[in-house]
Amino acid sequence: MYSRNEQDYIQQLSIDCVIFGYREKQLNVLVPKMDFRGDFWALPSGYIGQDEGIGQAARRILEERTGIQTIYLDQFCVFGDAERSNAQVLERLISLNGDKLVERGLNSKALEWITRRFVSIGYYALVDINKVIPRKNEIDESIEWYPITQLPTLIMDHNEMVAKALETLRLNLDQKLIGFNLLPETFTMKELQELYEAIFDKPFPRNNFQKKILDLNVLERLEKKFTGAANKAPYLYRFQQ
Amino acid sequence: MYSRNEQDYIQQLSIDCVIFGYREKQLNVLVPKMDFRGDFWALPSGYIGQDEGIGQAARRILEERTGIQTIYLDQFCVFGDAERSNAQVLERLISLNGDKLVERGLNSKALEWITRRFVSIGYYALVDINKVIPRKNEIDESIEWYPITQLPTLIMDHNEMVAKALETLRLNLDQKLIGFNLLPETFTMKELQELYEAIFDKPFPRNNFQKKILDLNVLERLEKKFTGAANKAPYLYRFQQ
Repeated sequence: MYSRNEQDYIQQLSIDCVIFGYREKQLNVLVPKMDFRGDFWALPSGYIGQDEGIGQAARRILEERTGIQTIYLDQFCVFGDAERSNAQVLERLISLNGDKLVERGLNSKALEWITRRFVSIGYYALVDINKVIPRKNEIDESIEWYPITQLPTLIMDHNEMVAKALETLRLNLDQKLIGFNLLPETFTMKELQELYEAIFDKPFPRNNFQKKILDLNVLERLEKKFTGAANKAPYLYRFQQ
Repeated sequence: MYSRNEQDYIQQLSIDCVIFGYREKQLNVLVPKMDFRGDFWALPSGYIGQDEGIGQAARRILEERTGIQTIYLDQFCVFGDAERSNAQVLERLISLNGDKLVERGLNSKALEWITRRFVSIGYYALVDINKVIPRKNEIDESIEWYPITQLPTLIMDHNEMVAKALETLRLNLDQKLIGFNLLPETFTMKELQELYEAIFDKPFPRNNFQKKILDLNVLERLEKKFTGAANKAPYLYRFQQ
């Protein structure tokens, strides 16, 4: 961003990405910590090039932090309160990091750009953590997966964005299940239930869950998984083509 | 818009509203025809003031065309393809209406503003047509309810916006039923079914529909409606408080 002219981007419009990651029965969120004194965490964000579609911009921002090119990304909400910019936090960042800002070529004009009011389009994705190697960009000190229950305090309204993205993920999970591509090629009903339980943060009664999922008509039942104890072996499933 | 400075608004960001109206078993959309030669229809639209939240702006735009202040409005999608502006249509409008543009004080600077690329936030609402008196604003020749199956060709991607808004309305109808405030205080199951059938444009089998709706747990059953033929009188319902 800093190396380009602000005219190359749409003014006062940004994109913020909530990247959910699933691994070992746990739901996480990918959060970069900014390389500034004062402990600032912010969602992966960026601007929209004048010649770039908003979906393209979102995929570019995500690829920058995850290396993944073909990711299933969806808009979930636009955040546009007049007061969302939270000037105090930005002022604190600037006052604690004058030297670093100069180092990075953030002159007063660039600061004026980032301290203006922004409307932000929220995108969310859900990825298999094992398939992603998080990457810092030039303003990150670190980038980590945080369990959703242990998120740090993020700048501006970014914690609210995560909450809203989670609400949307829960609402749409049945429809988006296949697209997210989170499970191995074949999986057991138990593995699928564990995914739901991680996302909803609550247990599901086994029989109800199985009925609900089978009613979606998206699964194909295969042979039993070989476990050595044939009569207790669970069925394997895969998504219908 | 024309009377204010463009600096009072966020640049390149607009709001478009799909206002669905229900009356007599039919779903309609409120569409203004622009007061320009060449037959241009466009969804009710506007910009976002620098001190205005996006929700506030959407309600202002809607109130302008409907007079309704407390309306249940929801974002449904952001339209942000790089090429959505459809320069040909705008050029045709300008070439056919040079005199009218001058009359309205649309100088070349104002035209430059409206012909730039815009990202647009789509909002949708569903209202009772009997409670709305559509109002022209200064750029409308007329404003009418059109049955959703007989919409004119709208400018830019506005027809696509209507299709996407309808998809969202169908997906969320169960959850939003109460908020839309479309039915009288008390109503019969048949009246509710007719509303669903208008929105989904298909018949629902009566027993299935009744079971599905009662399973939502949002209705309270009252006494039977008095029709003279007591044994065939339908129950009345209302939404739970």
